[in-house]
Amino acid sequence: MNIILLSGGSGKRLWPLSNDIRSKQFIKIFQKKDGTYESMVQRIYRQIKETDETAKVTIATSRAQISAIHNQLGEGVHISPEPCRRDTFPAMALSAAHLTDIQGIDPEESVVVCPVDPFVEKEYFEALKALSVQAGKGEANLVLLGIAPAYPSEKYGYIIPEKEEKLSFVKTFREKPTAQKAKEYIEQGALWNGGVFGCKLKYLLEKAHELMDFTDYQDLYDKYDTMEKISFDYAVVEKEPKIQVMRYAGQWKDIGTWNTMTEAMEETVVGKGIMDETCKDVHIVNELDVPILAMGLQDVVISASPEGILVADKEQSSYMKPFVDQMDGQVKFAEKSWGSYRVIDVESDSMTIKVTLHAGNSMNYHSHRHRDEIWTVIEGEGRTIVDGMEQKVKAGDVITMSAGCRHTVIAETKLKLIEVQIGEEISVQDKEKHELE
Amino acid sequence: MNIILLSGGSGKRLWPLSNDIRSKQFIKIFQKKDGTYESMVQRIYRQIKETDETAKVTIATSRAQISAIHNQLGEGVHISPEPCRRDTFPAMALSAAHLTDIQGIDPEESVVVCPVDPFVEKEYFEALKALSVQAGKGEANLVLLGIAPAYPSEKYGYIIPEKEEKLSFVKTFREKPTAQKAKEYIEQGALWNGGVFGCKLKYLLEKAHELMDFTDYQDLYDKYDTMEKISFDYAVVEKEPKIQVMRYAGQWKDIGTWNTMTEAMEETVVGKGIMDETCKDVHIVNELDVPILAMGLQDVVISASPEGILVADKEQSSYMKPFVDQMDGQVKFAEKSWGSYRVIDVESDSMTIKVTLHAGNSMNYHSHRHRDEIWTVIEGEGRTIVDGMEQKVKAGDVITMSAGCRHTVIAETKLKLIEVQIGEEISVQDKEKHELE
Repeated sequence: MNIILLSGGSGKRLWPLSNDIRSKQFIKIFQKKDGTYESMVQRIYRQIKETDETAKVTIATSRAQISAIHNQLGEGVHISPEPCRRDTFPAMALSAAHLTDIQGIDPEESVVVCPVDPFVEKEYFEALKALSVQAGKGEANLVLLGIAPAYPSEKYGYIIPEKEEKLSFVKTFREKPTAQKAKEYIEQGALWNGGVFGCKLKYLLEKAHELMDFTDYQDLYDKYDTMEKISFDYAVVEKEPKIQVMRYAGQWKDIGTWNTMTEAMEETVVGKGIMDETCKDVHIVNELDVPILAMGLQDVVISASPEGILVADKEQSSYMKPFVDQMDGQVKFAEKSWGSYRVIDVESDSMTIKVTLHAGNSMNYHSHRHRDEIWTVIEGEGRTIVDGMEQKVKAGDVITMSAGCRHTVIAETKLKLIEVQIGEEISVQDKEKHELE
Repeated sequence: MNIILLSGGSGKRLWPLSNDIRSKQFIKIFQKKDGTYESMVQRIYRQIKETDETAKVTIATSRAQISAIHNQLGEGVHISPEPCRRDTFPAMALSAAHLTDIQGIDPEESVVVCPVDPFVEKEYFEALKALSVQAGKGEANLVLLGIAPAYPSEKYGYIIPEKEEKLSFVKTFREKPTAQKAKEYIEQGALWNGGVFGCKLKYLLEKAHELMDFTDYQDLYDKYDTMEKISFDYAVVEKEPKIQVMRYAGQWKDIGTWNTMTEAMEETVVGKGIMDETCKDVHIVNELDVPILAMGLQDVVISASPEGILVADKEQSSYMKPFVDQMDGQVKFAEKSWGSYRVIDVESDSMTIKVTLHAGNSMNYHSHRHRDEIWTVIEGEGRTIVDGMEQKVKAGDVITMSAGCRHTVIAETKLKLIEVQIGEEISVQDKEKHELE
């Protein structure tokens, strides 16, 4: 099975755990059987592999997420990075070109496209396999997964099938309706459109070439920013006469907000948290190392991270985006390919961060114009290179770097350091990369 | 007017703002007219001085609070420190001896004793003045302030006066009653006992010498730990036949819990916090530098500090003590006479703290057996002394101190530094003080 997972969006509705560079897909919040935690993307990838160990998975995502994906899934996964945001149709076209031109997959094979963020169980992946098989038969150009509605939701589009059977041709589509309309559609056998479909790879490529002017993957990648922003639904689905829908009646939760996220969580407390016995339907997700005490609350989600603290009625939390948009956009925590960093103190003319490097990794060799930096190694062993001079370092060692000085650290074991930045203009933009001489 | 302010208690019911060494009295939470904030102890001290600028104020407190009191009130205030906790009777006896033996106040003068934590306005202090004057007349040995009950509370003891007049002799006392009983008492003209009274200083001293064996202030201080734990109410008030009560019908709020604390706050948000329009009767008190977003909550208090995060229904928050007792007791923030410190990162073999020194102040000259320390100055100027070697330091300078090495820093301006502690046994107990050679 070939699967394209669409992993997009800024995830602001799961603030403070998601930020501009760490999206909701990467938050380790789902407890596994062994007690450790996995993220949305790790969970879905594991589930796909458990259902079909030969599945070829390609993640269509923004460039900013590449490091996080490799950190969480290893190097085996294919990534089709979008140079910039251009809505779902260009993203799918680019991924399809990636599958054929980069991965060498036969365009006659079928492919399943689905978002990364539903919370689902094994039966869902069995349905994706069936979808892939059905798409391969060529009875229709597109085979959609139609989700049996759990309630007359106003949040989803509806698929109206010709017949109320497991497999049917699609009669028509309906945009997000009122609850009353939704009820009527459901009485006619309508299904939710979760954005999941199967088709032959060549179908995607043909549509891409019909609507966009490019030769191959690299060409499309290079001129990606000139492409029109258009959704796959609008560009393709609504115009396609030959569409089938497969009915899926298993578990399916769209984890876009805290409300649905907490429904999918096994545990009510992740991280340090205590609730009194009068709390009811409360969830605590705490990434800080200070404890949270919750008392006398009901239907509330509490989440704390280096970015901030959310305390919200679960239903109300869906409306957080405008408030999060107001907040100071400084990223206080980030996962990188080489490790992670966390801002631990901010003053007017200084900033202190904790940097963690994975064993065998290093930062870019870089310098800053407007700040001095002091590293104090607190754990592990490695080497630093400062203006070309290399030295071994271990816990307790201090390295001082004046503005302009080129520097990097190479972790031999897992290595942690406290970096104090001192200067009147501290900014993430003040960074020049250099080749190691 | 002579006033003894009783400033005791661990203040765990205002966690996370109070901790073992910072009590609720010192939290700067009350907004002044100029927009800055003052603490409970600053507010009451200012109010006393505004009512009677010649008032002599003595604060009876634990030794741990001396630094915080001088930081907040300056050096002009008298402090009668208790060497250890011994309930209110020994504490008052010690303060009374402090007034006569250390401050030289005539035992014929009257003194007013009151707790530091009611939230009150000018009229209260006028009442204290009247109490002091009445005590000076000698009509009774004790003159209590009786607070006109706002509702039939089960939290207070009641004073039953002989007559329902502004001034009356006391008929009897009643312990904390049921609401029904409280209602009956109030119908008989009963008043709350807020622990506020006036008497002649010599009365306190006589009672002290009757019940405890000591010669003078220093003698009592030295043998304080041998004194029996006994309350002033039990030792004196209940046995005294000649007690008057002055009726006080003005504002009086006892700020012992978040519920009453938030009632006394001018503003609903102190620190970084945003509420959506669906929040009702919500208070945010945030000492962290990350924002708090509250949505869809009602009657909730949210408070965050380096010690932890509280999210509680206001009523329910009164029951927090057992939960706070469970928490790891490591103090993450402290005010000292020389400045303050805050823990910003904790790892298994290292701890990083931010230290702020007031201009002109220094730490003790000290050393640690089991940890190395590295200071990076991030703001200000001063001098360090390390194993007797003195050097000037400024922002950007780094000082490394191996275990065993003696060190201090003297702030010439306000000075901030990041201290990284490295060692396998990091503990506040690992500290030896030395004389500067």
